[in-house]
Amino acid sequence: MKGARADRASGPPVADSAEAVASSGTGVTAPGGFRAAAVASGIKPSGLDLALVVADHTCSAAGVFTTNRAQAAPVLVSREHVAGGHGRAVVINSGCANAATGETGLRAARETAQLVAAAIGCAPAEVVVASTGVIGVALPLDPLRSGIPRAAAALSIEAGALAARAIMTTDTRAKEAVVEFTVGGHTARVGGMAKGAGMIAPNMATMLCVLTTDAGVAPPLLSRALTEAVGESLNRITVDGDTSTNDMAVVLASGVVPAPAILGEGRDYDAFRAALTEAGRRLAEMIVRDGEGATRVAEVRVDGAGDGGEADRIARTIAESPLVKTALHGGDPNWGRILAAVGRSGVAVDMDRVDIHIGPVWVAERGRARDYDEAEAHRAMTADPVRIRVDLHAGGGSGWMWTCDLTRGYVDINAHYRS
Amino acid sequence: MKGARADRASGPPVADSAEAVASSGTGVTAPGGFRAAAVASGIKPSGLDLALVVADHTCSAAGVFTTNRAQAAPVLVSREHVAGGHGRAVVINSGCANAATGETGLRAARETAQLVAAAIGCAPAEVVVASTGVIGVALPLDPLRSGIPRAAAALSIEAGALAARAIMTTDTRAKEAVVEFTVGGHTARVGGMAKGAGMIAPNMATMLCVLTTDAGVAPPLLSRALTEAVGESLNRITVDGDTSTNDMAVVLASGVVPAPAILGEGRDYDAFRAALTEAGRRLAEMIVRDGEGATRVAEVRVDGAGDGGEADRIARTIAESPLVKTALHGGDPNWGRILAAVGRSGVAVDMDRVDIHIGPVWVAERGRARDYDEAEAHRAMTADPVRIRVDLHAGGGSGWMWTCDLTRGYVDINAHYRS
Repeated sequence: MKGARADRASGPPVADSAEAVASSGTGVTAPGGFRAAAVASGIKPSGLDLALVVADHTCSAAGVFTTNRAQAAPVLVSREHVAGGHGRAVVINSGCANAATGETGLRAARETAQLVAAAIGCAPAEVVVASTGVIGVALPLDPLRSGIPRAAAALSIEAGALAARAIMTTDTRAKEAVVEFTVGGHTARVGGMAKGAGMIAPNMATMLCVLTTDAGVAPPLLSRALTEAVGESLNRITVDGDTSTNDMAVVLASGVVPAPAILGEGRDYDAFRAALTEAGRRLAEMIVRDGEGATRVAEVRVDGAGDGGEADRIARTIAESPLVKTALHGGDPNWGRILAAVGRSGVAVDMDRVDIHIGPVWVAERGRARDYDEAEAHRAMTADPVRIRVDLHAGGGSGWMWTCDLTRGYVDINAHYRS
Repeated sequence: MKGARADRASGPPVADSAEAVASSGTGVTAPGGFRAAAVASGIKPSGLDLALVVADHTCSAAGVFTTNRAQAAPVLVSREHVAGGHGRAVVINSGCANAATGETGLRAARETAQLVAAAIGCAPAEVVVASTGVIGVALPLDPLRSGIPRAAAALSIEAGALAARAIMTTDTRAKEAVVEFTVGGHTARVGGMAKGAGMIAPNMATMLCVLTTDAGVAPPLLSRALTEAVGESLNRITVDGDTSTNDMAVVLASGVVPAPAILGEGRDYDAFRAALTEAGRRLAEMIVRDGEGATRVAEVRVDGAGDGGEADRIARTIAESPLVKTALHGGDPNWGRILAAVGRSGVAVDMDRVDIHIGPVWVAERGRARDYDEAEAHRAMTADPVRIRVDLHAGGGSGWMWTCDLTRGYVDINAHYRS
């Protein structure tokens, strides 16, 4: 057995990619106790647009939701449902975000939960509802009224991959991950699927992530593990700095592995949290790599900050800078732009102590140019991933972000007129 | 006489453009008491790269400087020089930012001031030094040692326009403005020149603005008027949200108009401040219109906020959103992106009260779509300028920003590899 290692939980994701744990499943149905289905309900003009993930029995459940003040109806309803700490199903439609839709939207989200509850036999409050697609358009209920019973009738373990495809909007690839870990001497799994590539014309509401596990985890611990895992994965990626109205990550824990449920801190909790984090990271990396127009990805790491919060703030400023992102696109080791981003981050940095490294090339020392090899720096700026590291020499705080380049492709995708 | 109107000071700039006051001068030498010169010193491979603006006598002087923690050597030196409240000259080189250059850079900036002082006969502390161009490269002193005396020998009233050309880097057009106003019954002028278009490969340090006036203004009032004017003009534009290491706006007041100097608040001060603001706005608008890759500009106005600071913060979030900026490029009246930007601005907005207007088209009411005419909204999104207005219905705070679209041109300019 090969477990996700808790000691990697604070580092960046990429080095771990090659160590991916082999698994028979591909996503949310890889852990025991879950089935899925996907159908073409008619919300989109064609193709799969409705995914259903259903646990055999009531699970512990937890969710984290967008911090955008403009919250879509499904976010409001699911936050309420998950607050109880239990859940049976997640239903996701693509094609319509059901955002900026007011009371009508809330009623539609509640009816969606009721339809699932009736089809699988549970309480509406045990159903998590998620939507992704166009903002400001009413969610059509007829497709859901016919599609949800059809999906419920088609549930299978094999359809996990189909569900991952059904939640795509502008994603070019389905995004699934499975991580194994050990709990009470038994092998357990975390499985997950996600969608997201940016926000796109006419206006897509983007990042969704569903995670499942067959470990048993008490609701408060599950919520805490999810928050910690997302903090080290999905919250560390940026495509364009825009935060959607529909972002949501939820986890269901079925507890079907024959091991005691995780009720408190300790080795089992650490193993579970590490696996959840690793699954989140793999999905997060897939989202950045599939970023709108992206041709290159970079890990931005900041060390030596006063604290982790300051390091994160600087890393985010660098990762979201249009000038850094275009330099990344051009493979230009343009450390002056990185330095300027550090300087405008809002953190009180002593610029005369700032070192900048691009991959193995130390390009700036104490805020000034070093005599580095330009060709070597250019190679480092075209590596996969590009590794930008800034050391502030001010304290022990570290942070990191993942980002992609800013390209003509991003402009082309997002400038397109709605018609 | 046609004076700049103080009652327009809190509104956006564009409506005023057609009311531009005719003037015999074109920029910094339009007010009495100033001469200018520009030479090709050799800092750039070819072309004008050194501008000198010199007052006939010592002036009141004030400056505002970049808030970036990474401050170029000329910013550090000029801040020190302007602190005394007096100045005789401004020297600006293009081609080298003298930023991230440490002690060597500071010595070079100080020597530049000494060279000007020796050439025109004043104290080095009366010389404001500004640089724009590549970051992280040492400022070559030989070109300055030969160029500054040549420039000083060539000073003339006519060369104001030449100076405005000499400070350009990636600007495609020189930027000058003149505004008349009345002080003590006499016509006075504010003149100005500016440069800036974004930051560009390899890494340009960008916005510089030199303002002059022939009114007499006591130093503390001059400093206050500059801060207020910049707050309503140059601080309200964004091309890419990146703040340069070299940004600087300075004003010199010669006091050659035969009117009493402005020593305190009152009608004269208001007239001067309004003229300074108007000159700043015209230059600010020119910078946005010349933004890298820009094909369209927009005024983003936020009304009904809790206070002006919150309104500004929301306006800035909208104006800097890559999704809003690409929608602007595509002429797409994509109010969902505007709503999402409001929601992630960090201001505690009640989204159910948010109205959005694009030009004359009211597209969203209380956070939801209105039944507007799509073709009319598309026309409003291709107007010059596009006027985006958000009303929060929460209070009396207003704010605004000017921005340009995000285009393939921006990507092409900034992704270019240094070679």
